[in-house]
Amino acid sequence: MPRWEPDARARLVVAALHLFTEQGYDETTVTQIAERAGLTKSTFFRHFPDKREVLAAGQETLSGLFAEGIADAPEGATALDAVGAGLDRACSTMTSFNRELGSRMSAAIAANAELRERHRLKQVGMAAAMADALRARGVPQAVAALAAEMGVLAFSEAFTAWVAADEAPDNGTDRTGGTDRTGGTDGAGDAGDGEGMVALARAALDRLRGALAELG
Amino acid sequence: MPRWEPDARARLVVAALHLFTEQGYDETTVTQIAERAGLTKSTFFRHFPDKREVLAAGQETLSGLFAEGIADAPEGATALDAVGAGLDRACSTMTSFNRELGSRMSAAIAANAELRERHRLKQVGMAAAMADALRARGVPQAVAALAAEMGVLAFSEAFTAWVAADEAPDNGTDRTGGTDRTGGTDGAGDAGDGEGMVALARAALDRLRGALAELG
Repeated sequence: MPRWEPDARARLVVAALHLFTEQGYDETTVTQIAERAGLTKSTFFRHFPDKREVLAAGQETLSGLFAEGIADAPEGATALDAVGAGLDRACSTMTSFNRELGSRMSAAIAANAELRERHRLKQVGMAAAMADALRARGVPQAVAALAAEMGVLAFSEAFTAWVAADEAPDNGTDRTGGTDRTGGTDGAGDAGDGEGMVALARAALDRLRGALAELG
Repeated sequence: MPRWEPDARARLVVAALHLFTEQGYDETTVTQIAERAGLTKSTFFRHFPDKREVLAAGQETLSGLFAEGIADAPEGATALDAVGAGLDRACSTMTSFNRELGSRMSAAIAANAELRERHRLKQVGMAAAMADALRARGVPQAVAALAAEMGVLAFSEAFTAWVAADEAPDNGTDRTGGTDRTGGTDGAGDAGDGEGMVALARAALDRLRGALAELG
């Protein structure tokens, strides 16, 4: 990003998601998104090819982090352990910005088929990145494909839970650290930064691992 | 379909895939597709909302067959056994028409990002249909999601192998019944109808089942 447009990309994402949820995706133009962000239309197009792609923001970054974490897992790690390392790497970078935007993103996705499609393609893309990274470790194709699907399922489940915990600050039932939103990072639902999501993703992956025995 | 347009849908699919691979997806118009099929543009729009959706042809039919097969599996069947029953049901309906179109579809998908997206969404849709049918049997969410992903991986792998076997009639290495393309349904790669694909899907699902033990 050019120096004179600090956080332009993030501002465009925020503006777009606000407009999508306020007035509808179809009714929102790129000009409106740029205006709301206090930027020009040409700045928008330097960051995104079209308004739908705003939803894919973060896909490449997350995919890269998944792949790095998987590549850096210890040599003898199993496929699922490597996926866990990828989830750790990606989730630890998640910020309160991601979290706050999460519920607005969910609302936009729920309301529009085109955004729903883009969201699903984002998951497909992340699964492909994980599967590639696993294959690069010598994991056979079928095992890599399954482990990658489990990684994406765990990530999605964890993200939903992480956002929901942020939306319901008074609901202490799922929280180990009480209801203090400014508290430490020891409670999975509490952390404003990515540590909480790391714990949630680990738990989700463990649940999926447990589900393997029930497949039959 | 109206009586006076027998096979209109199938003719539109054939015409579209021929045009996509001959002159490119972007260059192909709905008018051209209808003309090639010997039909009108309004007939096209009775069957598909736009040219991209031609690629989704069969998605609802296949999803319905997967779901039926899963619902009809014996009461005590495991999640993966139920998925196997869904694959049986869907694959047994595959015809030489599906098979012949398969390689053209692959070529069109490989050459265009929009079609690639639609193809992936088709897979996502089929996985959702299988997962729903499994949950309706009382299979827990995580188990249903994993089993459904395995079902789609098996179906995709089997379809690719089935089409490839048709394209290489002189390659007898993967065939149990020789190279007679008009032969019986005993060889997985030989059958012009769906029996060959049933066997391939079963084998793919078995391989995936075997891969579970390697996930770690």
